[in-house]
Amino acid sequence: MKLYDWHIAPNPRRVHIFLAEKGLNIPLLEVGDGFVLKQDYREKFPQAMVPILELDDGTIIGEAMAICRYFEAIHPTPPLFGTDPESIAQITCWENRANEECFLAAAEVFRNSNPNFADRSLPGFADKLPQIPQLIERGKTRLAQFYKKIDGQLKKYEFLAGNTFSAADITCLCAIDFAGWVELGADSPLAQDCPNVQRWYKEVSSRPSAQA
Amino acid sequence: MKLYDWHIAPNPRRVHIFLAEKGLNIPLLEVGDGFVLKQDYREKFPQAMVPILELDDGTIIGEAMAICRYFEAIHPTPPLFGTDPESIAQITCWENRANEECFLAAAEVFRNSNPNFADRSLPGFADKLPQIPQLIERGKTRLAQFYKKIDGQLKKYEFLAGNTFSAADITCLCAIDFAGWVELGADSPLAQDCPNVQRWYKEVSSRPSAQA
Repeated sequence: MKLYDWHIAPNPRRVHIFLAEKGLNIPLLEVGDGFVLKQDYREKFPQAMVPILELDDGTIIGEAMAICRYFEAIHPTPPLFGTDPESIAQITCWENRANEECFLAAAEVFRNSNPNFADRSLPGFADKLPQIPQLIERGKTRLAQFYKKIDGQLKKYEFLAGNTFSAADITCLCAIDFAGWVELGADSPLAQDCPNVQRWYKEVSSRPSAQA
Repeated sequence: MKLYDWHIAPNPRRVHIFLAEKGLNIPLLEVGDGFVLKQDYREKFPQAMVPILELDDGTIIGEAMAICRYFEAIHPTPPLFGTDPESIAQITCWENRANEECFLAAAEVFRNSNPNFADRSLPGFADKLPQIPQLIERGKTRLAQFYKKIDGQLKKYEFLAGNTFSAADITCLCAIDFAGWVELGADSPLAQDCPNVQRWYKEVSSRPSAQA
């Protein structure tokens, strides 16, 4: 199998960290080229999103969390999506919140402000899609609310979905570091009054997997 | 346990259909009141989103798919999130696409055009969040692309994530019917040149669970 990768991009990083936590090494194929995806990749996969996992029989699995759940199923240890009904549910919930409320909010700010994405305000569109400047401010509002929300959760638990490190922490770390690209990350004013976020961020960032 | 429900809303419907497919009956507590959530619910859950599952010990599980994965874990039959690594991955992938590319796109159009949501352009915000009219057009573009994408997938497979009905079909049906609220559903011009979407829509809509 091989993983089509854009190494600096935040979505593939979710898979890198996940694989590092599992102790797995999967062959990577870099398909990024500066601010765009290489042309042969865009021709092979017109949706033009990363990461994609290609199995040896040619089966294609898209989406970071789908790839992670694939590896969870074939290498269950250590478990990163829960082990009982409640942990399974809480990890799904917080992973989804980190994605929708932080990752997508950071993407809103980044894609609608960066001049390199002037006609590409959403990933996965072949046709031009203009930027919407109002989404920058809205994205900041969403991120500020997200930091407050998870600060309350991290006051109660060591990690985002409970007292065990999980896929929810991975998505959240990648999302917050992505917000850092537009200076709205963990060291920004948005998060400075969130002591539990600071404690958690320091802890998950210092895990070896964070460098994967 | 009980499920806090806003019966007409599209997110709770994902859980209703899921439970019906499992043959489960869970006590529902209606918390919707016209176009808003009841005040006592908003006070108890300031995030003010539905659905929420409350277990008998007071544990709270938010997010439609987290609730569904909870029930999958305690009632595995019939399986709706896959049974082997590949089906687990494909269902996660297509459920996520249906959510991000269709459900959220429909929400963009609805929330930014409906006068009842003038200051509530995103769910879950206590403070006012103004509408962004450009998101209406962008949402239509996203929906049009989504119909084309799943038409290709449904040409190859009976259901969205393969030849077995799954949680991906549930999210997709709820998302498309939500798009119907703003006249961009399966019977709209956006989907009329997608014969495989039409075939699939007729099939999943006629399952008894669709009326749940």
